[in-house]
Amino acid sequence: MNDTILGKLEETILDRRSADAGSSYVASLFAKGLPKIAQKVGEEATETVIAALSGDKGELISESADLIFHLLVLLSAKDVSFEAVLAELARREGVSGIIEKAARGE
Amino acid sequence: MNDTILGKLEETILDRRSADAGSSYVASLFAKGLPKIAQKVGEEATETVIAALSGDKGELISESADLIFHLLVLLSAKDVSFEAVLAELARREGVSGIIEKAARGE
Amino acid sequence: MNDTILGKLEETILDRRSADAGSSYVASLFAKGLPKIAQKVGEEATETVIAALSGDKGELISESADLIFHLLVLLSAKDVSFEAVLAELARREGVSGIIEKAARGE
Amino acid sequence: MNDTILGKLEETILDRRSADAGSSYVASLFAKGLPKIAQKVGEEATETVIAALSGDKGELISESADLIFHLLVLLSAKDVSFEAVLAELARREGVSGIIEKAARGE
Repeated sequence: MNDTILGKLEETILDRRSADAGSSYVASLFAKGLPKIAQKVGEEATETVIAALSGDKGELISESADLIFHLLVLLSAKDVSFEAVLAELARREGVSGIIEKAARGE
Repeated sequence: MNDTILGKLEETILDRRSADAGSSYVASLFAKGLPKIAQKVGEEATETVIAALSGDKGELISESADLIFHLLVLLSAKDVSFEAVLAELARREGVSGIIEKAARGE
Repeated sequence: MNDTILGKLEETILDRRSADAGSSYVASLFAKGLPKIAQKVGEEATETVIAALSGDKGELISESADLIFHLLVLLSAKDVSFEAVLAELARREGVSGIIEKAARGE
Repeated sequence: MNDTILGKLEETILDRRSADAGSSYVASLFAKGLPKIAQKVGEEATETVIAALSGDKGELISESADLIFHLLVLLSAKDVSFEAVLAELARREGVSGIIEKAARGE
């Protein structure tokens, strides 16, 4: 899986934070402030839910991409790295793996 | 960035889809059906928004991890690979990069 | 409390369903279809949440009005009367009152 | 339309704010604080959206009732009366009516 996309995207968002709001969508989001960025995450999640229930695969892919993009912007706005989120997922997966092994008597 | 975490997580979700609903959280979600899985994505997005506005960084990391996890479950439920979402993000980033270069006269 | 506002609003929505989409916001929503109407309810709820956490009372009032308006449009789109929702709230309140009285030994 | 239900519900919520969190659901919500109350509004909105797209009329009625109930709790938590939201809806409806009349040349 070509996930370095997300690392690159995170860097791009960081680069554009200080760009001119008129020329960069990311800069325009940062100019509007945290509540508006958070609102976009909520909106894109609703659109993802609706695409999953009423749309085709292309719409679900497009809305999921929008959701992840705006989540990365929100994390950036709070100075939280996506790495920290991945580390949390890895930690849970590790714990979960240990519990599964224990349940299987390994 | 150690993103292969997401690829591994996607595989784990696929493995557990057919597990016993009593022993696996993922299997219990699949047993409840698509509307309930979609609902979890909506709920976790709301919690992410609230953590960003009212919580600390630890809460935002935890809620973002929950959101991504449930998004991966939703994609799996619709037989959409996370790879397809990453490809869409890469495509947009490429297009965006071309536009930026053009704007700079490169 | 002057709630007949909601009854009047529901009638207005019903009247405008068949209006020209170019001249009526309600008609334009119906023209876009159920998923878009549902999406508006999700969006307005997110904005209400954000106004409650980050905004002033005026913003909360405005977003709550938006949420109720779009909920009435959604109910109308599914041919559900707001009366039915009020009856459900009354039923619960009645049940809740009975439970409270029982708990007090009345 | 018997809307006095909403006025009565608002009073009941106010009465129960100071009740024991162990015996009253409303009191338990207030004890958890504003972010948790806001989260419930977001969750119920998502469930309303899903019921509209995937459920039957009974589910939509039930989820809409949940949404309105938790919106009333949120307004109460911010000391905003539902009357103020109704007044805002009436004001818009009035403005809208005036615009419609003007458009018709009345």
